Amino acid sequence: MRQDKIGIAYENKTQNSKALFTRGTRLFAGGINHNVRLFKPYPFFSEGANGKFIFDVDSNRYTDYWMGHWSLILGHSPKPVVKTLSEQLHKGTLYGTPNGASLELAELIQKLMPSAELLRFSSTGSEATMYAVRLARAKSRKRVIAKITGGWHGFNTTLMHSVNYPFHSPEGTGLIAEEEQFVESLPFNNLDSSLKILQSVIDDIACILLEPILAGAGCITPDINYLLGLQEFAHKNDILLIFDEIVTGFRLSIGGAIQKYGLNPDLFTLGKIVGGGMPIGVVCGKKEIMTLADPTIPADSEFRCNIGGGTYSCNPMTMMAGLATIKYLDENKNEIYSKIDGLGAKARSGLTKIFSEANIDAHITGEGSLFLTHFLNDKVKIIKNATDVSLSDQKSLYRYHLALMTLNQIFFLPGKMGAISYEHSEADIDQLLMATQRILESGLV
Amino acid sequence: MRQDKIGIAYENKTQNSKALFTRGTRLFAGGINHNVRLFKPYPFFSEGANGKFIFDVDSNRYTDYWMGHWSLILGHSPKPVVKTLSEQLHKGTLYGTPNGASLELAELIQKLMPSAELLRFSSTGSEATMYAVRLARAKSRKRVIAKITGGWHGFNTTLMHSVNYPFHSPEGTGLIAEEEQFVESLPFNNLDSSLKILQSVIDDIACILLEPILAGAGCITPDINYLLGLQEFAHKNDILLIFDEIVTGFRLSIGGAIQKYGLNPDLFTLGKIVGGGMPIGVVCGKKEIMTLADPTIPADSEFRCNIGGGTYSCNPMTMMAGLATIKYLDENKNEIYSKIDGLGAKARSGLTKIFSEANIDAHITGEGSLFLTHFLNDKVKIIKNATDVSLSDQKSLYRYHLALMTLNQIFFLPGKMGAISYEHSEADIDQLLMATQRILESGLV
Repeated sequence: MRQDKIGIAYENKTQNSKALFTRGTRLFAGGINHNVRLFKPYPFFSEGANGKFIFDVDSNRYTDYWMGHWSLILGHSPKPVVKTLSEQLHKGTLYGTPNGASLELAELIQKLMPSAELLRFSSTGSEATMYAVRLARAKSRKRVIAKITGGWHGFNTTLMHSVNYPFHSPEGTGLIAEEEQFVESLPFNNLDSSLKILQSVIDDIACILLEPILAGAGCITPDINYLLGLQEFAHKNDILLIFDEIVTGFRLSIGGAIQKYGLNPDLFTLGKIVGGGMPIGVVCGKKEIMTLADPTIPADSEFRCNIGGGTYSCNPMTMMAGLATIKYLDENKNEIYSKIDGLGAKARSGLTKIFSEANIDAHITGEGSLFLTHFLNDKVKIIKNATDVSLSDQKSLYRYHLALMTLNQIFFLPGKMGAISYEHSEADIDQLLMATQRILESGLV
Repeated sequence: MRQDKIGIAYENKTQNSKALFTRGTRLFAGGINHNVRLFKPYPFFSEGANGKFIFDVDSNRYTDYWMGHWSLILGHSPKPVVKTLSEQLHKGTLYGTPNGASLELAELIQKLMPSAELLRFSSTGSEATMYAVRLARAKSRKRVIAKITGGWHGFNTTLMHSVNYPFHSPEGTGLIAEEEQFVESLPFNNLDSSLKILQSVIDDIACILLEPILAGAGCITPDINYLLGLQEFAHKNDILLIFDEIVTGFRLSIGGAIQKYGLNPDLFTLGKIVGGGMPIGVVCGKKEIMTLADPTIPADSEFRCNIGGGTYSCNPMTMMAGLATIKYLDENKNEIYSKIDGLGAKARSGLTKIFSEANIDAHITGEGSLFLTHFLNDKVKIIKNATDVSLSDQKSLYRYHLALMTLNQIFFLPGKMGAISYEHSEADIDQLLMATQRILESGLV
């Protein structure tokens, strides 16, 4: 009933989107090109975006906390990116050859994240994690990948396992058991259990791969001792350690989670922010591992590992957009991170207070500029891993996000965490808090 | 010795590239981000590109036949693409939400390639082929993939097998035998042998996946009866047939190889041209297969197949660039394809004549706007599959391409086929022919 009321209000103000979505169902399975973008009754269709705002085809303007899958730390179409791309456009979008901008971007990453002794650019995060695992298997001559239960590393065949609740079933059809058998999943923030699982596959384990903060699984922050415990175990047992910093890189700090938490991975992956709004994935890490990708190694050598690359790798549009973004972040890092982290803290503490005062049992997770509200219930009293998120009251979360979108022009992709950009302001967080209060008071959630 | 002379001339005119390449070796394994882009002594670094030209950092201007991995059928930075991207830039590069342009592009593809009953956009060709295979396995409930010996479908783990001579060894380390066991490779243009191999795995075969023209393997054109024979066998035995049209789509005709050869696949993939110079991959095909990707199917259903997607899927820059390109191709298809096909025919016949008159045994392969010169030898008298290419005189081909680049400012990625764009002219082909004649006369090749 409450769902219906918000749903009807949403439909009323998104009639053009509704028509486009119906048209889309004749083109795309389920009307969509990325599963996560689908929500009920249907997603709005965007017509434009600028700064912190995204506009739909019904002239609704939303304050955007989804921000291009959390990629747009400077907001939509930031000036430095628009400027450089406007120029680059006329000079070619795809050389298919090496170019100087790729060196500048790589050197800047290396400066800010010294663990990147060597780098390889690809075009998507899903490619980057797939290649990182391939390198780890090549280096270790072992096969098992330990990932986190619920950890998300893209749709690649290698890592599309143990992603969705209940986690132990295959992630849909078309994936083969012979490959899946080499993926083990570890419960986040539970070191004892994780080490036991690792110990059980110790003879054949190639790598431990994890996000420092579980992003897609529900904005779950780490117990730092969990990360360090895994790291210690990995180093002690010659297991390669890979941090997937596709979301946290240049988000948690200018040096990512690695810098913020003092981590020491063998490999790590980047994406999202580092592309400045253009397609990118990056594998970075220790020279002794990354050099296995050197194409001058003879093809029949036991040390040669083939990774992409791809047609669009290092394309000058992505390189220039990424360079403009990371340069801007580097030059203004103090202002930027103190601002967005401060807004994140304000959102988390403000929301915590509002839910508490409304006697609604909620846990606002997050760190820095990332945050997500979880509605608790009898089964879940605190969020520390992906199972907790799955068992929490997700229906209320969806309803809350849909109400924010419909009644308050505030866009979170329903169920997913928000990312604050440099374009967001104190006033935006105040609005979010007031909107939340109104929603709770009206009994909509 | 002859190699050295051209190599020295190349180095003399690409000193800035040499310095950048050296700098790159401290950042990237082998100095490169895509294996195929590496050639000796080192690849030049691009500073810009326009129309049919690409410019390096030493102010050399080359007539480009590599054309962004054969993607840029309208040349570098064509006006319709520059115009639409200049506008889109200010309206956001990455919405992370559905948008109308994706519907328009999908509808246009559907109109031109009716086999695309449903579509799914991703960001790279490597993703598209990986998802096509996953869908085929999901639909068929079988595991074996038959691909062509030497066939190239990207760096994804599933299809990175049987790519490089001698084809039967693993393609480097880090790939696992448990997955590789499900890939069978078929000798291109040899129907009897191919059918025998297919028959030997008939109980577990999910799909046959092939490029209509082997592109990366050496611009190898099909015996049409080979394609139709595989198709007949597939249809008769309920094996899914997938054509990888990433190179040939919108290249061989406005309806791709499917239209030109009258093919009838279950699924097909697109990339390159369809992105208008921006990152893209597309899986297209029959509704009954594509619907398995519908995210509204319950997660625990045996019919649910999870494919990407990805952060950048359907991003408005790619959608607008692709739409501008395909619209332009559609509106001008008669002029465009008759022009580029004519230039291709002129290049092939002209080169054939020149090599013949010089008494050099060569086979100029290709079709439409694609062509490649193969230097024959005692082992290889005609090019009909990837083994022939591998055993042909590739050193002479590299030397020829390096001489074209160095002495005549004509750029083929050494060893790889050329793709003619709408920007190329009769005069360019004349230049290519004259340059070839001079190179042969001077005994450099």
